[in-house]
Amino acid sequence: LTLPIAVDAMGGDFAPKEIIAGARRAVDELGLSVILVGVPELMGDPLGLDVVACSEVIAMDDDPGASVRKKKDSSLVRAAELVRDGKASAMVSAGNTGATMASALLRMGRLPGVVRPCIVTPIPNPGRTPVVLVDAGANAECTPEMLVQFAQMGSTFVATRYGVGSPKVGLLSIGEERTKGTPLVKATHELLDGMSTLDFVGNVEGRDIVPSPVDVIVTDGFTGNVALKTLEGAFKFVFSTILEVIGTNDDTKAAGDVLLEYLLPFASRLTPESQGGAMLLGVNGICVISHGSSNATATMNAIRVAAEASDEQIVAKLAATIRPDQVA
Amino acid sequence: LTLPIAVDAMGGDFAPKEIIAGARRAVDELGLSVILVGVPELMGDPLGLDVVACSEVIAMDDDPGASVRKKKDSSLVRAAELVRDGKASAMVSAGNTGATMASALLRMGRLPGVVRPCIVTPIPNPGRTPVVLVDAGANAECTPEMLVQFAQMGSTFVATRYGVGSPKVGLLSIGEERTKGTPLVKATHELLDGMSTLDFVGNVEGRDIVPSPVDVIVTDGFTGNVALKTLEGAFKFVFSTILEVIGTNDDTKAAGDVLLEYLLPFASRLTPESQGGAMLLGVNGICVISHGSSNATATMNAIRVAAEASDEQIVAKLAATIRPDQVA
Repeated sequence: LTLPIAVDAMGGDFAPKEIIAGARRAVDELGLSVILVGVPELMGDPLGLDVVACSEVIAMDDDPGASVRKKKDSSLVRAAELVRDGKASAMVSAGNTGATMASALLRMGRLPGVVRPCIVTPIPNPGRTPVVLVDAGANAECTPEMLVQFAQMGSTFVATRYGVGSPKVGLLSIGEERTKGTPLVKATHELLDGMSTLDFVGNVEGRDIVPSPVDVIVTDGFTGNVALKTLEGAFKFVFSTILEVIGTNDDTKAAGDVLLEYLLPFASRLTPESQGGAMLLGVNGICVISHGSSNATATMNAIRVAAEASDEQIVAKLAATIRPDQVA
Repeated sequence: LTLPIAVDAMGGDFAPKEIIAGARRAVDELGLSVILVGVPELMGDPLGLDVVACSEVIAMDDDPGASVRKKKDSSLVRAAELVRDGKASAMVSAGNTGATMASALLRMGRLPGVVRPCIVTPIPNPGRTPVVLVDAGANAECTPEMLVQFAQMGSTFVATRYGVGSPKVGLLSIGEERTKGTPLVKATHELLDGMSTLDFVGNVEGRDIVPSPVDVIVTDGFTGNVALKTLEGAFKFVFSTILEVIGTNDDTKAAGDVLLEYLLPFASRLTPESQGGAMLLGVNGICVISHGSSNATATMNAIRVAAEASDEQIVAKLAATIRPDQVA
């Protein structure tokens, strides 16, 4: 018996409509089992999907900690409880990222030994499996010990999800030399260098994110979030400029018709929609964090990722990665 | 009588040949006055330019502090001394960035009241004057007071160089709310918010770098360097992919011929070569830091920037920006 994926119908810029449409497609196109969690009066047509009704919604700009404490009957909190109570195999939300993390952390709890959960975000890496950026934004302030755990969990994620045998781990800094960077980066470099269980290749720089020579890029959540959004902004900007150039005149439009056939698959791989969301690692359950701009396709992909991660028993593998007795 | 620009002939991936060729073009095409600083036996043909001879070279991977202390007759140190001694109006180097900063700092000295010099890097901002990122890599570790000075110097740079009346200043963070980010960012937000001499618009995110709604983006040198290199990597990757797609077959090549005419000017504006280099702000003289990959065109542009900044009396304007009695 496979447990369903709990999908927060209320979170995201295009919720509930695109979320529900994506959940429906996950059932129809991928054969997955889904429960929507939402406020019936606000949800519109649930398209025949099972619904767990709740009465509250955490808004995109609500304070994460306070909203999770106060809105105990919100879709986010209820979705996390379904996972905790063994009624769902995973939760998926495109809503308030901070509140999603707080719901998962407070309701599912941390895995033993994990100092702080982190967000892992896959980035397309042409010709290779995706590179993951970890932490992509959960923790603005980090210690070297936290970054070591991010490296461990990121490695396990890549090994589990993409079948990479010995994932190469790079530490994001501002030069290859171990003397470069902040005190946090230098101390983390020393710790990672001494670990026999990780394939640590040393520092990488911003230009090593796309394309990347490594499988896991470790950084604090502040730098990770800035880098990720810089990347998204750059891609979005270049693609919109290309479309503008193509629209210049009839000749460029005709040329665009020829090239777009080849460029669009490439562009779509680089958009957040295709990635199916990031994941919170280190909590005792699966929590997929979709992009706030998720449409139906992105939602379907996020549900697919959640189902695959559940089948792959990623939580048990992460638990085995972090040994509580080894925490510094 | 206009003083010449001192150009370090020995620094950069394509030194000395491309550097000297660029210096020659600055004289021939822009009518500027230039002195090359270099080791005659290693320089090849100086193309008829004036040369200040020295005997040492600081390598790209030399330790910045140690090399500047030891190699007192290096091209970098000598170039900085020409500015200090009033024999050159500015120095330009595509060499070891850390050693360039150290040479400028140790030989020219800081402007009164400046806690730490910073690197300002202009980024093309379509439809507007460039946005500048400050600090782009000089200081991995910063205090809120340093970031406030970066904001002040960045504003003066934009006002002076691009004629922007009241430059909009954004603080790089991971959310718009003042509660988002590291303790450094939050404390800096409070300080900037209370300043009547700056047009501080609040936090900006990675996706606000290109295109940018502001004129100055303030950040620590670690985050700034990561963001800048991420951006460079993303643009380089997308453009190389477009060229690859265009090369697919005869049809795509023909379409490429039509579109490249429009795309290339856009692409070239986004490459480091066209920007003519970053500048070190807060030292008592002009120091232009060219990209390590500078070719002759980039070198010529860097010399042009140095000459313009000198004409605009940027050092005097920066000195007036930082009032020693106001330093926290």
